[in-house]
Amino acid sequence: MTEVIEILLIEDNPSDVKLAMRAFQKNNLANRVQVLRDGAEALEYLFSTDRYADRKGQSPPKVVLLDLKLPLVDGHEVLRRIKADPVTRMIPVVVMTSSVEERDMVESYQLGVNSYVQKPVSFEQFIEAVRLIGFYWLLVNKVPPLPG
Amino acid sequence: MTEVIEILLIEDNPSDVKLAMRAFQKNNLANRVQVLRDGAEALEYLFSTDRYADRKGQSPPKVVLLDLKLPLVDGHEVLRRIKADPVTRMIPVVVMTSSVEERDMVESYQLGVNSYVQKPVSFEQFIEAVRLIGFYWLLVNKVPPLPG
Repeated sequence: MTEVIEILLIEDNPSDVKLAMRAFQKNNLANRVQVLRDGAEALEYLFSTDRYADRKGQSPPKVVLLDLKLPLVDGHEVLRRIKADPVTRMIPVVVMTSSVEERDMVESYQLGVNSYVQKPVSFEQFIEAVRLIGFYWLLVNKVPPLPG
Repeated sequence: MTEVIEILLIEDNPSDVKLAMRAFQKNNLANRVQVLRDGAEALEYLFSTDRYADRKGQSPPKVVLLDLKLPLVDGHEVLRRIKADPVTRMIPVVVMTSSVEERDMVESYQLGVNSYVQKPVSFEQFIEAVRLIGFYWLLVNKVPPLPG
């Protein structure tokens, strides 16, 4: 039986993926994380199409950590698509970005983001932020059991 | 100068208000909390009308903790109104409820809730949940500076 994926990390920056995975490992969450590196693959995964057609019927992740600057389909479009569908709308999406532009934040909230986090620049603060995000969305927040 | 309100707690159950305030006090947040006990007053506060017309131009709270079963206007209607307006949509809303009904959760997500938390039954877990919610939404999550 495959491990249930609870965190979907959509991030193309290799050093950010590495740092986030280190934080997840420290908290014994690493085997519940799926990493995808572009927005097109993320949409296929979340909607169980194309390369991920065999995911149909499986539980969705408990939280999606979404970078904004992504190859193929950008983060805002991925967010828009998730929140436009009544089934995927129930998946919590946390934007994690290095952008400090207010319009990126405003657009994310307008599209219905659940939470918006600016990536801390320091190594330690980045690890701590990822730990808190994982903790909050896996243990404090509740999501309904969804059709996959 | 008045203290900036960062947490708006909309809750009519006196013992839940007391417990939540104890958790905020422990974390030195109590003077940044405003408690409102029904949905009608909550809407006046958030939209700066009627009894709260003088709040116009002031910063919105960084997070709203919203009970579902409220007098006058229920929590789902308060949530619907907050998320239907492009300005107030940017205020994070965390539903905190003792309901264990799936339809309450589904309706909240469909209306655009940012996070959904079931009130823990044990005293210690309730305090810990409120602490984590305050910590996450005040320190990890970011909101745009909004017109009040």
